[in-house]
Order: sequence, then C-alpha cells, then structure tokens
Amino acid sequence: MAKLPLYAAGFMAPFAILLIAAAAEDTALLKQAQGIFQPLPKDMATAEFPITRERVELGRSLFFDPRLTIDASMSCSSCHQPAFYGTDALPKPTGVKQRPHPRHVPTNLNAGTSFVIHWRGDRTNLEDQVFQALTSPITSGQPDEKAVFDRLARIPGYPPLFKAAFPDDPQPITLRNIATAIGAYERTLVTPSPFDAYLAGNQEALPPTAKAGLEKFINTGCVACHNGVGIGGGMYQKFGVVEDYWKATGSDPIDKGRFDVTKDPDDLYVFRVASLRNVAMTPPYFHDGSVATLPDAVKVMARVQLGVRLNDADTGDIVAFLQSLTGELPANFATAPVLPSGFVVPAK
Amino acid sequence: MAKLPLYAAGFMAPFAILLIAAAAEDTALLKQAQGIFQPLPKDMATAEFPITRERVELGRSLFFDPRLTIDASMSCSSCHQPAFYGTDALPKPTGVKQRPHPRHVPTNLNAGTSFVIHWRGDRTNLEDQVFQALTSPITSGQPDEKAVFDRLARIPGYPPLFKAAFPDDPQPITLRNIATAIGAYERTLVTPSPFDAYLAGNQEALPPTAKAGLEKFINTGCVACHNGVGIGGGMYQKFGVVEDYWKATGSDPIDKGRFDVTKDPDDLYVFRVASLRNVAMTPPYFHDGSVATLPDAVKVMARVQLGVRLNDADTGDIVAFLQSLTGELPANFATAPVLPSGFVVPAK
Repeated sequence: MAKLPLYAAGFMAPFAILLIAAAAEDTALLKQAQGIFQPLPKDMATAEFPITRERVELGRSLFFDPRLTIDASMSCSSCHQPAFYGTDALPKPTGVKQRPHPRHVPTNLNAGTSFVIHWRGDRTNLEDQVFQALTSPITSGQPDEKAVFDRLARIPGYPPLFKAAFPDDPQPITLRNIATAIGAYERTLVTPSPFDAYLAGNQEALPPTAKAGLEKFINTGCVACHNGVGIGGGMYQKFGVVEDYWKATGSDPIDKGRFDVTKDPDDLYVFRVASLRNVAMTPPYFHDGSVATLPDAVKVMARVQLGVRLNDADTGDIVAFLQSLTGELPANFATAPVLPSGFVVPAK
Repeated sequence: MAKLPLYAAGFMAPFAILLIAAAAEDTALLKQAQGIFQPLPKDMATAEFPITRERVELGRSLFFDPRLTIDASMSCSSCHQPAFYGTDALPKPTGVKQRPHPRHVPTNLNAGTSFVIHWRGDRTNLEDQVFQALTSPITSGQPDEKAVFDRLARIPGYPPLFKAAFPDDPQPITLRNIATAIGAYERTLVTPSPFDAYLAGNQEALPPTAKAGLEKFINTGCVACHNGVGIGGGMYQKFGVVEDYWKATGSDPIDKGRFDVTKDPDDLYVFRVASLRNVAMTPPYFHDGSVATLPDAVKVMARVQLGVRLNDADTGDIVAFLQSLTGELPANFATAPVLPSGFVVPAK
C-alpha cells in the first residue's frame, strides 16, 4: 500500500472495521465448512481392505491391461481415463463388442470414499465392483472366470506379481485377488484439492468467488446431501425431490434408479449421491450424462432437488467453489505402467 | 581380487593374454557396429517439420483425445498405448464401430526415423499418416474434415492451443495443422537404449550375451536390412527372400504387401523393413501379428530371409541383443496429459 497522510487514517477507520468484520465472517464460514466436510485422508485403506505395495503394483498393471477382456481391447482405463480424470467424456460408454453400458461413468478417483459403488449402489465396495466387472458381459465379455485366469497365466510377468501380492495363496490367480489388487490400487487414488487445504485452515487456499460459492452451496441446501469427505457419496437420495428430474435434464429413457435393484417403491428414482470431487473435470453430468456443462448441472440440481431457481451470478459462484474441488492427478494414475510383455491370442 | 602368491602370476599369464585378446575383439565389434548403426538423435525434427513447444503441447493433447473420432471412443493412444510401448498387444487392431484394421500396429516410438510410414510405405511421413488417419473410415470414422473441426471448435480449450501453435494462421484448425502438431509431438518420442550408450563408446552398456548376439546379428546377415539409426526402417524388402513367408508364419490371409499399392510385380510381398527398437516390448510380430514371441520371430526371419536355421542358443543371444534396444518410455508419452475439458455429444 502507498504511504498515506495521517488524516487519511481517520477516513479509513470504517473500512478497517469492515475488513475485521469480513475476516470474522470468513472464519465463521471456515468453521461451518469444517463441521460439514472432511479433508481427504492420504489413502482409502480400511481394516478389511489394507494396502500393500505389492498389491498396488499388481492392481495398477491389471487396471491398465486390456488383455483381461474378451477381445483384449478394453481395460479399466478405457472408461476411467487419466486424461479425463477417471471418466471418458461420454454420456454413456460402450463396452466390448459395441455393447452399450446403461449409465454414465463415475470417476474412480477418490471412489473409495463412497459408501456404496455405482449409481444405484448395487456394488458394495470397489472390490465388489471389480469382481463383478471381470465377468460382466458388457465390461469384460469373458464367458467365465477360467477365461480370465487363462489370459493372465499366459503372460509370463503376471504369476510372479500375484505370488508377491498374495504370498500365502497356493493359487493366487483368483477373481477375488484380482479384485483385491485393483481395489488396493484404487484406494491409493486420492486427489487433495485447494478445498482440502482450506478445510485444514488455510483461508487463502480459496479465491473470494469460491468462498462466496461455498456459502451459497451451504445456504441453498446442497450440503444436505453433498457433505462429508467426498462432498457426496455418503447416502442415497431421490433424484427429483420437488420436480421430476427428466423435465430438467431431458433424460430419455427415464431411469428408475435403485427401484430396479430393490423393487421397493420408496427407491423409485433414487440414486447414490455423487461425490463432487473433481466434478469440474468430468462432464457430462448425472447418471445418464444428459447435461453437458457444470453451470447447467448446478441449476438442474437446485431446481429439482431444492425448488430453487439459481441466477447466473450465484451459479457462477457455486461453480467457482466446485472448481476448488479439483485436485492434481495422482502420479501412479497419470502415468501408465509398462505392462508385463507377452502376447495372448484374443478370443474371436 | 584376493591376494595371490607370486608363483600364480606365471600360471595366470596365458589368461591375461586371452583377456587382452578378448578386449581387442570387443573393440573390433564396437567399431564394426559403429559403421552399421547410428545412435538416436535427441529428437526427430527436420527442416520441413520443425518442433516447437506449442505444437508439441497441442499435438500431445490431440494424440490422447478420443473426441476426434466419430463415436469419441478412440484416440491415437488407443492403438499406440504407452503401456505397450506404443502398440496394442494385438495381432491386428479394431477401429471405430468394430471395423477391422488390415495390419498390425507398428509402434509410434522413434517412428520418425523410418524413411516411410506404414507396413507398405503408403504414408510418406508421420504427418501424412496422421492427415490420412483423421478421416479414415476405420481409424476415425468421421465423414469429412468439417466434422473433425466441429468437435475441436466446441471444446473451449482447443482454439487457444491452435492459435498458440500456429500464430500466423487466421483459421488454425485445419487437418494439415492437426497433422503437423501430432507429428511434432511424435518427433519428440525417442527412446535411447543401452545399445545407444554402447554405440557412443561405453562397452559396459551391453552384457556379454547381448554382445555375442550383436556379433551373430551382424554375421548372420540381419544387418543387410536392419541397420542405421532405426536398426531397420530405412528400406523396402521382400518378406520371404528364400522361402514364402507364410510357410513360416502361418499367415492367413497372405498379404501381397506393397504390390497392392503400386501394382508393380517387383513389389510382390515387399514391406517396409521394421525398426527393431523396443522390439522386445512389442509382441506379436510382423505385418499381421502372426508370430507371438520374439525368439520365434528371430527364427522366422533367419529362415525366410537368409536361409539360416538358427538354434536356440544363437537365437537366445540375438534376443539378448534385441533386448538391449529397449529404451525408457519418454515421460511425455508415459504420462497422459489432462485434456481440455468440455463435452461434445458424439455422432450416432
């Protein structure tokens, strides 16, 4: 600041008071945020699913290896692409043999923070998701688990990696162990963001627009569902609480959500609440990728969940907050591993 | 070495002479190799195709971006996967909409060292390959160049990258510029190997088996075609000089090679000689991926090109030499870029 003549001090006192009041408000917002959200842990290991170096190394190779699928054309990373923050930039992906997937790809980054996996919660955890994907007709196309094992056993580099990761198993190449290894790898994929630094107490980590957006995100009621460590991912919720969702999204067909899993009328149009971490990097949005841009997605949510019509300015602030949830890509995800060499003739 | 009594010196003198003779032989081999091969340059820029930082940055994003293709499902990196050293581990890849490619994927690593591109030499250089791929019905599926431009223009991050890479062009988004940018990126992808260190004079860079293999590689006659900076990639040659190639490879169908391009009977079964850099990392082998392992590929080549039946020991030595051609993956290839965000609805 330039030097000011003394008489200016009196003139500026009211501004100083305003600044102090603003600082107090900022601190109140931080405290409020700390009560609603939690920063990311350093990984997502649990007592049931511990992380070992050997399992992560094996899981990382398997994650990037297309040779597990029927025509050796797709890997986990075909849909969960590093270049798109673990998504594929499509409304809905296409699986092996041009078979369509029914729903949009959720990112695998920080996915271990979710209480269940998949839009309808029909996978209990990361390992269950992998386990079922390995013989899914859309994701894998393999007829049975034996076909998967045959592939791996014929790539000379893999059996030693399995042995190292599961030293107590006489036959370590099993669907369960593949799932455990890929799960262990995925449990390392956390993306701490400016918002985590903010939650840790660094008020400078967020620009003023993001703080304004955070306040609006809280006061509009978004945090009723989008809270906790994932800023979402902690509960089920009906999509379209105050208005049918498809009227705002243009969705076609209309997905009944968890109802199709449980047949419970209370689950009609119910989905797992999505984590908003890295949401700015993963368009398009919702279970069917029906909305292309983040501002539109924010407006749809406010409208159909909370009955609020957000204007462009408030939407922009909330988007600025959501952008503060973008973290850096983990190095062991951004960089592809060199896969065990050795060719396997794909099934016709 | 442990201390020896004096009388042992007389006993060891003949061994010392042998060691000196072996060292002289080693040096002779190095000199011979230096006359046949050249080490990799630091990049593959030419006067016609210079490299700029901005073009490489744009080209790298385009290389990894699937949104250029008709269903936004495949990028250059779908076939040229970092995890497989710029190949896809398949005999022949499948393009968009399950359309089969006619030939095996050659690696894009060091590809700028080849005198022409593609197995039949029907692409004059890297930029020509990209240019033609952008509207190929198999590789891209896009109906015309306008469809490609529309995609790029609708991803907000791209127009500024084009402007920076081609500042003098009023309309920088052109097929020619896309090809130039991806070409510039590919011209940075060199993989210096232990063999390059050896050619530079470091005799310790190769283990003894690799040196024995190098000697056999030279004396068997492989170097008639596999020479120069690419250890291949510098000429055309008939596949099957002394014996029809398909009798050794089991190829079906029988590819007539360059004859189908030129209709010249002299070009029957003629292909561009493949570069052997990183060959140990890129099974399966040949224009149709008909041979699964490197030892088998070495035996096939000796048999059909040179009329030599290599035994397992000599084959093993040559494979050890070929393994010394494996370099480290370039960091800007191993690590996927974060792509400009912004979703584009794919064509149906």
